[in-house]
Amino acid sequence: GWGDLGVFGEPSKETPNLDQMASEGMLFLDFYTANPLCSPSRAALLTGRLPVRNGFYTTNAHARNAYTPQDIVGGIPDSELLLPELLKKAGYTNKIIGKWHLGHRPQFHPMKHGFDEWFGSPNCHFGPFDNRALPNIPVYRDWEMIGRYYEDFKIDLKTGEANLTQIYLQEALDFISKQQASQQPFFLYWAIDATHAPVYASKHFLGTSQRGLYGDAVREIDDSIGKILKHLQKLGISENTFVFFTSDNGAALISAPKQGGSNGRFLCGKQTTFEGGMREPAIAWWPGHIPAGGVSHQLGNVMDLFTTSLSLAGLQPPSDRQIDGIDLLPAILQGKLIDRPIFYYRGNEMMAVRVGLYKAHYWTWSNSWEEYSKGVDFCPGQNVSGVTTHTQEEHTTLPLLFHLGRDPGEKYPLSFASDEYQRAMEQISVVVQQHKATMVPGEPQLNVCDKAVMNWSPPGCEKLGKCLKQPKSDPKKCFWPH
Amino acid sequence: GWGDLGVFGEPSKETPNLDQMASEGMLFLDFYTANPLCSPSRAALLTGRLPVRNGFYTTNAHARNAYTPQDIVGGIPDSELLLPELLKKAGYTNKIIGKWHLGHRPQFHPMKHGFDEWFGSPNCHFGPFDNRALPNIPVYRDWEMIGRYYEDFKIDLKTGEANLTQIYLQEALDFISKQQASQQPFFLYWAIDATHAPVYASKHFLGTSQRGLYGDAVREIDDSIGKILKHLQKLGISENTFVFFTSDNGAALISAPKQGGSNGRFLCGKQTTFEGGMREPAIAWWPGHIPAGGVSHQLGNVMDLFTTSLSLAGLQPPSDRQIDGIDLLPAILQGKLIDRPIFYYRGNEMMAVRVGLYKAHYWTWSNSWEEYSKGVDFCPGQNVSGVTTHTQEEHTTLPLLFHLGRDPGEKYPLSFASDEYQRAMEQISVVVQQHKATMVPGEPQLNVCDKAVMNWSPPGCEKLGKCLKQPKSDPKKCFWPH
Repeated sequence: GWGDLGVFGEPSKETPNLDQMASEGMLFLDFYTANPLCSPSRAALLTGRLPVRNGFYTTNAHARNAYTPQDIVGGIPDSELLLPELLKKAGYTNKIIGKWHLGHRPQFHPMKHGFDEWFGSPNCHFGPFDNRALPNIPVYRDWEMIGRYYEDFKIDLKTGEANLTQIYLQEALDFISKQQASQQPFFLYWAIDATHAPVYASKHFLGTSQRGLYGDAVREIDDSIGKILKHLQKLGISENTFVFFTSDNGAALISAPKQGGSNGRFLCGKQTTFEGGMREPAIAWWPGHIPAGGVSHQLGNVMDLFTTSLSLAGLQPPSDRQIDGIDLLPAILQGKLIDRPIFYYRGNEMMAVRVGLYKAHYWTWSNSWEEYSKGVDFCPGQNVSGVTTHTQEEHTTLPLLFHLGRDPGEKYPLSFASDEYQRAMEQISVVVQQHKATMVPGEPQLNVCDKAVMNWSPPGCEKLGKCLKQPKSDPKKCFWPH
Repeated sequence: GWGDLGVFGEPSKETPNLDQMASEGMLFLDFYTANPLCSPSRAALLTGRLPVRNGFYTTNAHARNAYTPQDIVGGIPDSELLLPELLKKAGYTNKIIGKWHLGHRPQFHPMKHGFDEWFGSPNCHFGPFDNRALPNIPVYRDWEMIGRYYEDFKIDLKTGEANLTQIYLQEALDFISKQQASQQPFFLYWAIDATHAPVYASKHFLGTSQRGLYGDAVREIDDSIGKILKHLQKLGISENTFVFFTSDNGAALISAPKQGGSNGRFLCGKQTTFEGGMREPAIAWWPGHIPAGGVSHQLGNVMDLFTTSLSLAGLQPPSDRQIDGIDLLPAILQGKLIDRPIFYYRGNEMMAVRVGLYKAHYWTWSNSWEEYSKGVDFCPGQNVSGVTTHTQEEHTTLPLLFHLGRDPGEKYPLSFASDEYQRAMEQISVVVQQHKATMVPGEPQLNVCDKAVMNWSPPGCEKLGKCLKQPKSDPKKCFWPH
């Protein structure tokens, strides 16, 4: 979450490496994800397109979040062009370390979508599963699985101990060294997941944080990032390497306080289209190019990393499709402010939009009364009347409007009768109209679930004697509760 | 508020000078005021003692906040020894610029309590008053008033324009120059009030903040602090001058979003004994002595500035009375952590205590249902069930316990049945027992109000033709609503 970094005001201030990265680079205060949930956010990062365009959404119910659990049939369509596919044209070697989450069936394998190397898992590490109803999640090296979480890659749910971040770190350092040695340009997508419940940390970090296990995980990630940056410096390639740190969604407040982080003073968390769900910590680092200690109010989005990375490689984004990401280099290198909106989606419903400092909510929803009454709360301790609603509330004729400068916590909707409301909404309406008029949604990938597509027998399972029996195919509509 | 500074994560990051002060000095993350309200907090700062000891409290009702409005009869007792009185012994010249707030009757004048110079006002600048029921607040230079707010020192309530911070800045720069020229040590208490409602800023700063008028005021204060620090450097005395920045209470969320600030992710605000009411931004600055970029988790309190300042001047605190402030120099200069509790009071009721990372609430209250139903809300958009209560709830037999590392927002009370609760409460109970057993409350100064004592004819009013007719004395119990 935005508020998990010292530089963003976490009261324990336990991220010295990220804080230093910010002081040597540029801090983005108004940076967003494209979706308040993992898979769609990552699909947006790698395609430069909103999930509603690249297919990472559901239409099974109105305004529902969806991702890629084990039984999802869909994944990243071949028709989407991913960042690593494009970077290949400029001679880049591409590696993903960690969580992929763009589909786990064979056609969705990251190495079928531009990556040259992979160490990590197709799905989340939650579990352990029983290998009967649900197989444990496999860990891949390139084309083949080399084991499964909990069985071969241990996570101790009692102590929270797991050395996965250390493995991911070593993978990153080795890859960077190899690329430097061979003088090959590279794209490394370092997608660690220690702060996702069940959170974990390696022995060395357990118990070192004021914040408990979640803080231990943050500290280990922070430490690893420090080591990666130092490695780049030691190899003498820091001035040739653009590094960007951000997150895929806001902290999951449902998991707080033991397994969840902080969104600072922003409202609610993961799964919601309030600021706490979608505003992300973000730091750009590129010594010798980015002025040290810079701070930018550029409205940014993970999708911009697609376009910006292409720009850095001297490539143009594809012209045969709508790209939502913009090139941030003018903002990063020349301090320019580019006028652009931020859209907040759930499924194919545009819930809210930000234009300048104004944010208009066309729909509000945290989660359902039914879930809420069972203790599922995306906004614990926070209740802004008429805003953090437990029914889906439509405001399309008279959107709720907030000024995020005066009121970053979205607590004080502007008066509908005010001149300020009228002026701001006039401007916003034009942006929304234009956006909706030209919107061509992609084929929704997250509508169909089937037990048969789970990680029963990933390639390599034979060698390990870890193949499981695949049940009969029985495709069904996926159920998405919120 | 804690969350108003960029370095503490304010999303607009508009305090470059305070942020730089922190990067050149030491940031305190766990620093507190002695009371969630102005007058008692300031009395504690200058006496090194809890308000319940120095008399800045009321017993008119249970657990009520009280301060020094115009009709207060009490003020700082002669028996209290103030920091400037003691510093005189070491040859210091002492000046207060801005709000005094320790009583406005003649015997409470700051120059009767150790200050050599004064420019500012005895009370808050809210108003304007009509000079019939309530006189406008006078502004003093030393022993005499030189005008009144609104009449002679303009505050435009429509535009928010007032140049008071600029006047206070110039006073500070002049005083420092004078002291440097005469080679005299000095204590400057720079007590600006632009962020207190009605908030104001001078023309140059109006409209410059993303955060509206409150942000303009913060920017002007930040800019002024930058100018003061640069002035010390220019005069070559920065390495001989200890500077500390903090606040007297949390941001007043009742005034948000237009006139109120931010307490970051802490719960509630001014007037409450939750973290948002009492945890304060705090920065120590002393180039050449304090290591640059230091961060301290020392539990600190405004009362420590009393003892620390004496220590810097080579003086001992008085030994004939209980002093609550501790010498922070070991924490500041050697990075030591001194074990000490923090007490959270309302009136003479200890509402809560912090020991280490644990905070136990013995009483909870935000404000009354009656006030709340009229729109007075100290915790807007926040409701933690059983914590932000609207009746005074006693928990003395089974205190509500929070772990402020995992849960700085006080949202998740620990389970009473947990081992952690048992262990922590054992330790806390000893601290509380000891504190209560040795507590000798002072004579409450904030119990009696009388219209006759208002600022009708302050010294100097004759020269200005600004004397007003004093009504008949009619002392009454003061009414304190929360």
